Amino acid sequence: MAVRNILFIMADQLRADYLSCYGHPTLQTPHLDWLASQGVRFTRAYCASPICGPSRMSFYTGRYAQSHGATWNGIPLRPGEWTLGDYLRQQGRATWLVGKTHFYPDTPELQRLGVNLKTPEGKRLLECGFDVLDRMEGLYPEGPAGRYNPEQSAYEAYLNQMGYAGKNPWNDWANAAEGPGGELLEGWYMRHAHRPARVDEAHSETAYTTDQALKFFQTHPEPWCLHLSYIKPHWPYLAPAPYHQLYGADDLIPRVRTPEERAAAHPVYRAFMNTHVSQTFAREGVREHVLPTYMGLIKQLDDHLGRVFHALQEQGLWEHTLIVFTSDHGDYLGDHWLGEKDWFHEPSVRIPLICYDPSAEAEATRGSVCATPVQAIDLIPTFLDALGAELPHPRLEGQSLLPVLRQGPGQALKGVAFSEYDYTVTPMASALGRTPEDARVFMVATERWKYLHAPGFRPILYDLQEDPLEQEDLGTSAAHTRVVSEMKELLLEWSLRHSQRVTRSSRELVARRGRSLQLGIRIGFWEEGEVPEDFASEAN
Amino acid sequence: MAVRNILFIMADQLRADYLSCYGHPTLQTPHLDWLASQGVRFTRAYCASPICGPSRMSFYTGRYAQSHGATWNGIPLRPGEWTLGDYLRQQGRATWLVGKTHFYPDTPELQRLGVNLKTPEGKRLLECGFDVLDRMEGLYPEGPAGRYNPEQSAYEAYLNQMGYAGKNPWNDWANAAEGPGGELLEGWYMRHAHRPARVDEAHSETAYTTDQALKFFQTHPEPWCLHLSYIKPHWPYLAPAPYHQLYGADDLIPRVRTPEERAAAHPVYRAFMNTHVSQTFAREGVREHVLPTYMGLIKQLDDHLGRVFHALQEQGLWEHTLIVFTSDHGDYLGDHWLGEKDWFHEPSVRIPLICYDPSAEAEATRGSVCATPVQAIDLIPTFLDALGAELPHPRLEGQSLLPVLRQGPGQALKGVAFSEYDYTVTPMASALGRTPEDARVFMVATERWKYLHAPGFRPILYDLQEDPLEQEDLGTSAAHTRVVSEMKELLLEWSLRHSQRVTRSSRELVARRGRSLQLGIRIGFWEEGEVPEDFASEAN
Repeated sequence: MAVRNILFIMADQLRADYLSCYGHPTLQTPHLDWLASQGVRFTRAYCASPICGPSRMSFYTGRYAQSHGATWNGIPLRPGEWTLGDYLRQQGRATWLVGKTHFYPDTPELQRLGVNLKTPEGKRLLECGFDVLDRMEGLYPEGPAGRYNPEQSAYEAYLNQMGYAGKNPWNDWANAAEGPGGELLEGWYMRHAHRPARVDEAHSETAYTTDQALKFFQTHPEPWCLHLSYIKPHWPYLAPAPYHQLYGADDLIPRVRTPEERAAAHPVYRAFMNTHVSQTFAREGVREHVLPTYMGLIKQLDDHLGRVFHALQEQGLWEHTLIVFTSDHGDYLGDHWLGEKDWFHEPSVRIPLICYDPSAEAEATRGSVCATPVQAIDLIPTFLDALGAELPHPRLEGQSLLPVLRQGPGQALKGVAFSEYDYTVTPMASALGRTPEDARVFMVATERWKYLHAPGFRPILYDLQEDPLEQEDLGTSAAHTRVVSEMKELLLEWSLRHSQRVTRSSRELVARRGRSLQLGIRIGFWEEGEVPEDFASEAN
Repeated sequence: MAVRNILFIMADQLRADYLSCYGHPTLQTPHLDWLASQGVRFTRAYCASPICGPSRMSFYTGRYAQSHGATWNGIPLRPGEWTLGDYLRQQGRATWLVGKTHFYPDTPELQRLGVNLKTPEGKRLLECGFDVLDRMEGLYPEGPAGRYNPEQSAYEAYLNQMGYAGKNPWNDWANAAEGPGGELLEGWYMRHAHRPARVDEAHSETAYTTDQALKFFQTHPEPWCLHLSYIKPHWPYLAPAPYHQLYGADDLIPRVRTPEERAAAHPVYRAFMNTHVSQTFAREGVREHVLPTYMGLIKQLDDHLGRVFHALQEQGLWEHTLIVFTSDHGDYLGDHWLGEKDWFHEPSVRIPLICYDPSAEAEATRGSVCATPVQAIDLIPTFLDALGAELPHPRLEGQSLLPVLRQGPGQALKGVAFSEYDYTVTPMASALGRTPEDARVFMVATERWKYLHAPGFRPILYDLQEDPLEQEDLGTSAAHTRVVSEMKELLLEWSLRHSQRVTRSSRELVARRGRSLQLGIRIGFWEEGEVPEDFASEAN
């Protein structure tokens, strides 16, 4: 059947290799595995920036972080950037949000332009182009300088309603545990990771978000697009019972790190090893204590995705709903001497990507695997292609994956992925003496190579074929000068792209050749009646 | 006295070396020479793109063409691009337009955003951020497919009013001559260039535009910014009497071209030699016939600028008005086997730039010359700096020239200029088999070198010190491999810049370091009361 709806599911900080279909030996994720068996699983999918905000803005705009400019968390997106909803509404798909976007509007600029923010269209400009069913950013702490996220979420009100008292039930119940004496232990402190969250599983963030989606399926008229955006398994690393105790230290996949890796580390990479989170994860015992909880949160998510898939089938939506499952980035979890994400090893920059296309045209590819590098920004073109919309669009920088979904992994893909990280806001910028303009790192990944370019520093190169665990940096290897130079050429070609020529399509520009002569502009004519040579003159 | 007003004068297609202060031996431009004697003359100023539209959008936004995206004539500017008026009104300067902008609004996008285009603010979004006194685009022909510029200009109505009859007095009078039998000869055909225009000099475009400025000085309350933007000496090459006959073939500066240059030409450069206008200018006698008229138009402009400067002095504005005189690009006039502009030799990409700062602080620099490469995008920062505004602004990509204006040419400037040309809309793209995405050329100019990068082709390099006439392309010279590689590094560094991170200033981003911890985000904490190491954790 043709694609009517689009269900775009995103997890937060989910490492691809923490799903059983991606090879995790002890963490079984049968529902996602089943989705993969019905669709195509991409094993080399990359986020546009290994950090929530810019990565998501790239998912939602179909553009690189350098193009949309929201290069770190909290940097507002320019109002002129089109989002998923802007594209899909043109295709007749109301585009709804349940969960997290990490979007910040540029309200002063919207006001400068004189935009009425109270109309439905205006409201969407404040919500990353979505119609909001239930926005839940999943981070509502308060510190000495105030609340991180000043807006109250519906989830917090829900918790209060369910009997979880207090001004900040998100912090005090959903992301807190209890000590032996009943004392509140905040989930921010990883030594509590082995304890169950104070909230009932049925009222936890993952359950709540799933409930919203299920309500949506029952109430919203088709066709639609739903962005179902879970906050988990993002920290705080705390899971509700029973997910807090499903796994133990024996269930961990081995840590990837060596003293040699640390000793030879590139200066910028080394600076990232010095963050508090990297140092904490570097300590013995921390992984064993925390990772079982991270795994439990994933197991919980998979269980709830089972509810989602079941509901889709029960309601007859499965047969005509395109489903994409992915994450905004991964999590180092102590690998490569790092915690968090923010850098470019596979645990961080690679994302899970599973695409289920309900169409009959996709029958032959079900369960197949595509190992070509693809990008987060490929999703909007894929959605548009699946809906029969015209491509290319001048704003979109990715390519449709629909040929892979319908004809299989052998289809022509560019086979190169770019990712970026702007570390201006981080302490690494000052530690490395970088200005706000040059605190950046760029990644170029091809089938075989991964190249990192940090302005002002030597290059980094990994041979993913010979060294899939990225242990040996060949950036200054004499034997790899040519590879480094070729990768740098790819970076230059990429960075010179037309990212802002968005007000006219290439098709329109080509159609304009010779047009000005037709409008009376006669450049370089000597006399009346002259017929110009091969090249018609053009208006300047 | 402090700077109160800004008068930003632009000529169109005026080659820097066609002013006597820039060395022209026979074309005397005493008024501009005098302005130069009162200010600083820049001998290595470059436009951001050697073609009207993108060059002007760079002047008006303070950003490179790759950043604002309006990379060729007729490509609308994105609504989120701030313009001169947006910056200067924040400094209390009403910002007015007399003359040409070559601006196209992105009306569909403005409508998508729900902008009310009927308010004063909305109207500015349709006029490149200016309040319009008299917009005059200077190109109103009609061809088989209709009128090039569908909007009627006030100048056309004025001509009708002055007795120049017909539907298109711009075409039939201001830019037409008469044959021996009184027949109308259109100025589009260069063989008529030696004849006087049918219009009286007093009613010609340059005179009319000047008249508007003079009225403005009399009527508009200070402080203000006026963009006085002449269409001339841009083609059609036709001058009103007596300017049509002031110069003759003997007054020409020598043509710069050699057979060797043509034989060795880079494939993209060669394609530009094949345009109709290049071929016309390559013919013997064409220069001798046309250039005297081009010179006459410049002489006329200089005379009218005399009126402008005189009026400023008479009205006591001179002492507190910052004046900048420049052009959007030059004109090959047959040099290097080319006509028009569109390529990167000095006659085309270099622009005249004279800056007069009325302040007492600028006394010592009057009459000085700055030979460091500077850019069109430096003007908005210069204006803001002169008005005491805070810099840097996250959108502005140039640097203030005020230190040069006040402390002299020895001041620290970056000393590198970038320019670009997108030839997608031109027939050269098809002739060279380029896609709409890669039909581009980039220029990097330093004190000594000029490097051109055309994706898909070999590099071009000129040694401006040893070869100021740019006769020898060293792009593939074995002796210059290192220089080419260094210039390419500059291009890469440039192209990786933050051009779209415009919604937050660098200062704000730096101030945010460690802030999320203050808002309760505790990443990588093991236990309560922990004090993070050197690097505070950051919210992701």
